[in-house]
Amino acid sequence: MAASEVHLLDGGTLEMDGFHVFWNRGPGGPVRIPCYSVLVVHPDGNILYDTGYDLDHVLRVLPFEKPLQSEIQTIPAQLALLGLSPGDISTVAISHFHFDHCGGIKHVPDAKVVAHRLEFEAAGNPEPFEVLGYSDLSFSSELGRRRGETGPAGATEIGDRPALELDGRFVPVDGDVEIAGGVHLVATPGHSRGHYSLMVELSGGASLIFAGDAIYTQRSLDLECIAGFHYDPVASIKSMRRLKTLAEERRAEIFFSHEAESYATYLKAPAHY
Amino acid sequence: MAASEVHLLDGGTLEMDGFHVFWNRGPGGPVRIPCYSVLVVHPDGNILYDTGYDLDHVLRVLPFEKPLQSEIQTIPAQLALLGLSPGDISTVAISHFHFDHCGGIKHVPDAKVVAHRLEFEAAGNPEPFEVLGYSDLSFSSELGRRRGETGPAGATEIGDRPALELDGRFVPVDGDVEIAGGVHLVATPGHSRGHYSLMVELSGGASLIFAGDAIYTQRSLDLECIAGFHYDPVASIKSMRRLKTLAEERRAEIFFSHEAESYATYLKAPAHY
Repeated sequence: MAASEVHLLDGGTLEMDGFHVFWNRGPGGPVRIPCYSVLVVHPDGNILYDTGYDLDHVLRVLPFEKPLQSEIQTIPAQLALLGLSPGDISTVAISHFHFDHCGGIKHVPDAKVVAHRLEFEAAGNPEPFEVLGYSDLSFSSELGRRRGETGPAGATEIGDRPALELDGRFVPVDGDVEIAGGVHLVATPGHSRGHYSLMVELSGGASLIFAGDAIYTQRSLDLECIAGFHYDPVASIKSMRRLKTLAEERRAEIFFSHEAESYATYLKAPAHY
Repeated sequence: MAASEVHLLDGGTLEMDGFHVFWNRGPGGPVRIPCYSVLVVHPDGNILYDTGYDLDHVLRVLPFEKPLQSEIQTIPAQLALLGLSPGDISTVAISHFHFDHCGGIKHVPDAKVVAHRLEFEAAGNPEPFEVLGYSDLSFSSELGRRRGETGPAGATEIGDRPALELDGRFVPVDGDVEIAGGVHLVATPGHSRGHYSLMVELSGGASLIFAGDAIYTQRSLDLECIAGFHYDPVASIKSMRRLKTLAEERRAEIFFSHEAESYATYLKAPAHY
């Protein structure tokens, strides 16, 4: 069993500094980056990998990232391009709970949500340098309560807490996981504690790897230069090398998460791989 | 037994981007930062903590850091301000082997050199993002051989290697170490694998803490914002908090490593604490 089709769902753009994109290398200055999600059409049910950012959240909490997102660049509108509605999604798999990847989970309230167990911990109790990354907790009232409030002022307290009690739609996982035939969550920690990349085997034989934030751009891979935003740079380098090796072994194309140049060459919904 | 005097030895300045000084926060743009060393005058022998950068090395390997260092801002000239020569130094303690802290070791060839054992490993086998930091290996021909050459092109190979054989002047240590009465190397890993800060108890009763690159600036401490250059951000935050607590307990002043504003207020050799 393998996936039938893969669609890239456009989610608009954000602006960050070149030093955010290329850690310590830059060059500095504003860089506009795309954000997108991936719909995997599968005989066992449709899977959405990541969900982009929520425009209102970014305008309220991170307006300096200058979001550009039209109505057509939201999850419901992108699904509608394919004749689908949120109810047609059975599983949402999240690379990590940074705001620009989890902001659209709320549009798919009936799907189960698969993510690494450490991402639930991180979102509920981030390091000081992760507070803005994990600022959109709209997808989980329990995580929101744990942080006191959703927003940059939350989560300065570090310490032992009772185990997280998530509602039943959330499925914390660990290690590499095949969430459906030929649809693999590939553990690539470093950018965040429990980051997952996605590898999809298509029924036609091709394999696609969506690096997620393990690799922002082609240059990142070429230079082994991770993003400025990260939890563990040593693990990040290992994860980048793992994806490079995996792509070579599977002869798979790697899709980068946040690069205008490569994104311009990708097929976007309603087109598909 | 405690230290008699502490002298700050001026080592010139370098330029980096604001995103290097304040990780992911900036603001971006050029920031000129001081580099300095610390001479601890002690009844058991004079101790030098850090040694600044070597001008020729920076001009050759990292010219974009635009070094400004006059002849008077070298270790021999700074010692001469105090009527001392390199032969009067018995111990050099190094916070970490980044080029702007180890560049003057070669001026003190007869002193023993104390550093964390992990720093010798890091300098001999850096992560890709550490190669420029550990680019000046002029202090150790063995480390230089291990890297193949001193310079940014070295050390791309990662793997198991035979144990490092250092010549007898090098003293690898681990954990907190009192290297002379009242002179403490305080383990503050994160910026680099084996970073040490320095705490000096003066015979007059005051204690001084030299954070080294565990805390670049006052704003870094206020915001818990580490430098862009780091090995382990989670450990970095812990180390910063450790120094803050230690300073409160000892009522010690914290000296920041790379901030023009605070540096302007510090006493410099020939003056002393």
